Amino acid sequence: MKAVGIVVEYNPFHNGHLYQVEQAKQATHADVVIAIMSASFLQRGEPAIVSKWFRTEMALSRGVDIVLELPYIYSTQKAETFANGAIAILKEVGVEYINFGSESGDVDSFNQLSDFMHEHKDEFDQLVKKHIKKGYSYPRATTAAFQDLHPASNMLSLTEPNNILGFHYIKAIRDQHASIKATTTLRKQAQYHDAFVTGHAIASATSIRKALMDKDINEISHVMPEETFSLLNEYQRSYQLLHTWEHYFNMLQYKILSTPLTELRSIYECEEGLEYRMKDLIKDSMSFTELMERFKTKRYTWTRLQRLLTHILTNTTKTEMEEACSTYKPPYIRLLGMTQNGRSYLNKTKSDREVPIITKFSKASGIQKQIEERVTNIYLSPLKKEHFIKEMKQEFSRSPIILNH
Amino acid sequence: MKAVGIVVEYNPFHNGHLYQVEQAKQATHADVVIAIMSASFLQRGEPAIVSKWFRTEMALSRGVDIVLELPYIYSTQKAETFANGAIAILKEVGVEYINFGSESGDVDSFNQLSDFMHEHKDEFDQLVKKHIKKGYSYPRATTAAFQDLHPASNMLSLTEPNNILGFHYIKAIRDQHASIKATTTLRKQAQYHDAFVTGHAIASATSIRKALMDKDINEISHVMPEETFSLLNEYQRSYQLLHTWEHYFNMLQYKILSTPLTELRSIYECEEGLEYRMKDLIKDSMSFTELMERFKTKRYTWTRLQRLLTHILTNTTKTEMEEACSTYKPPYIRLLGMTQNGRSYLNKTKSDREVPIITKFSKASGIQKQIEERVTNIYLSPLKKEHFIKEMKQEFSRSPIILNH
Repeated sequence: MKAVGIVVEYNPFHNGHLYQVEQAKQATHADVVIAIMSASFLQRGEPAIVSKWFRTEMALSRGVDIVLELPYIYSTQKAETFANGAIAILKEVGVEYINFGSESGDVDSFNQLSDFMHEHKDEFDQLVKKHIKKGYSYPRATTAAFQDLHPASNMLSLTEPNNILGFHYIKAIRDQHASIKATTTLRKQAQYHDAFVTGHAIASATSIRKALMDKDINEISHVMPEETFSLLNEYQRSYQLLHTWEHYFNMLQYKILSTPLTELRSIYECEEGLEYRMKDLIKDSMSFTELMERFKTKRYTWTRLQRLLTHILTNTTKTEMEEACSTYKPPYIRLLGMTQNGRSYLNKTKSDREVPIITKFSKASGIQKQIEERVTNIYLSPLKKEHFIKEMKQEFSRSPIILNH
Repeated sequence: MKAVGIVVEYNPFHNGHLYQVEQAKQATHADVVIAIMSASFLQRGEPAIVSKWFRTEMALSRGVDIVLELPYIYSTQKAETFANGAIAILKEVGVEYINFGSESGDVDSFNQLSDFMHEHKDEFDQLVKKHIKKGYSYPRATTAAFQDLHPASNMLSLTEPNNILGFHYIKAIRDQHASIKATTTLRKQAQYHDAFVTGHAIASATSIRKALMDKDINEISHVMPEETFSLLNEYQRSYQLLHTWEHYFNMLQYKILSTPLTELRSIYECEEGLEYRMKDLIKDSMSFTELMERFKTKRYTWTRLQRLLTHILTNTTKTEMEEACSTYKPPYIRLLGMTQNGRSYLNKTKSDREVPIITKFSKASGIQKQIEERVTNIYLSPLKKEHFIKEMKQEFSRSPIILNH
């Protein structure tokens, strides 16, 4: 059996994702689609609107065969680390292909870019450092460094978010000596950052989340499969919230107020005196959004700062992250769900794997597990006490979701 | 001018307190009454129901001339440390007398007890250790040790809470070589732990708080001065809460879930593996009360464990507390409020004082200030954001309350 891997957040699963799953299968003639899905907190440094279990079910009901957890130590990271964590898992489960969405749609252009960057690596790193010194943010510095290298005019641009991720997948495959072939799907219509849902069947996840928070959920039913729609409704009905940063603002505020500066400084990604600004701003910010608007500087992107605040909320230190990410070889891989087709694949390929795929969290171990447990508990904290207690218990004992179709 | 000092929590100020203020003046013929009042968290390890400012106003409106803050480093402590902190302040402000309420009402019996305990100090300490080893709680061990010493049958009993405090005031005066004369007022009618408010004009603060939380505030108006009554109403109307532990339970839960065991162990009063029990119990406790009921053991009293949880909430470490309490000489004394009579006293005695009395918190410094600021911010956290922000700002800039009467 042949597998194609995809790296996803599904926050929530929508028609654009459905299109990608179909394209990935068509382009590779794969028998199974394996999604590596971020668990509780996402790359932009924010909580997933619904739990990983609900998002797993959305995926399985629409073409994904296996959902594996991308743990916190990789899910809330810059593109390079994020991609390396995901590729390490895909390598372990033996996928033949990876498919990713991109603004380009042409995989050759990614390979050319990868070769070009490989040749100019040292020069590029020097240029990035130079621009950072000028006070540029990291993404702006990499864009400027890239342009300084005078790439050919038809070279893929490293300024689009999905191109950057794609580039890092290919780089990670090369660095980890993985035998995974890359394919890409042209992203349809919606741009990643589009703010509003339109009449089209495809809308960005950002615009869908905005619509979910602001207005009637029924107004956006046309941009997602009915399973997503009904699962979102069910989550909201059962737990009476869709997770946003505002639900965690009281905890964040308490954390920053109660933690001495020296300790804040030990948190992952807390650099260059950001702890002073946080201590200062938290005292008179009415909401998370207000805090972020005031926290933002030229030097640091919104995303970078949101990730820092996520690490503060989850109390994740530099030492811990260094230990947990010291190798990209995962200590275990957690299975969140599968179809019968996915189950066959996992059974048939079992003997090829070095890393155990665990079906119960109680089988996890080591620092990755320790961090994941803490982060999950914090993610669940805004729920009502009875739900919170139940979900925390189930997290340890529950089996993966299995869909029979 | 002659001053009498009293050590108080006023949670809230009631007719029993009013009676004590009057008795303290009568017994000592003092011109001014100086109250050392706990700020935000109290000896039993719980938040004060209303802010120190409201409680200061209650006191000033009914006979107290000066209210000085007992900082957190002393207010949430066992009797011995609590008494030492309070006596150190009273010594600095030069009171001639201290008055305390007691179940005995006879100051000679305290002096006899103090002499007796001074003579049998080493023996007593040995006996306490022996009983602790057997698994007794600290208060139970001291009671048993006291009985082992075979005190005369008419000797004051060290089993009543206010006798214990009284004993420690007198011991602290002796240990600190303070020239303060002790007087005591027999507590009227209500027992410290009485659960219900009766028809009498005097009820325990415990029963008053219970009534405040459970029923209509009007039902207890007869047990407190009208100023207290109207200030309680005003607080509730303005801030929409009276502080209880339940308001802090989410923060406590988040703190315990997000903090590694090694770090919990560094918190003041966290001993003998209590961190494991907390981590375990917090996962499925629906409320603070439920947590406490399950946390309670033979070995530790309710009060002792509530104090531990307060230190966890305020993130107060052993190292910090050791540094802050290394000497009972306060680095500064904070004035919360005074009458004109109180102001005259402070002006006249200014040249006698070594320790500065500060009128603005921005003048405070050192580790005591650092802890107090953090604790105050956490105490204010359950308020609505707009109140929280305002109160945190005012805490730094506001002047003491001055009552002209």
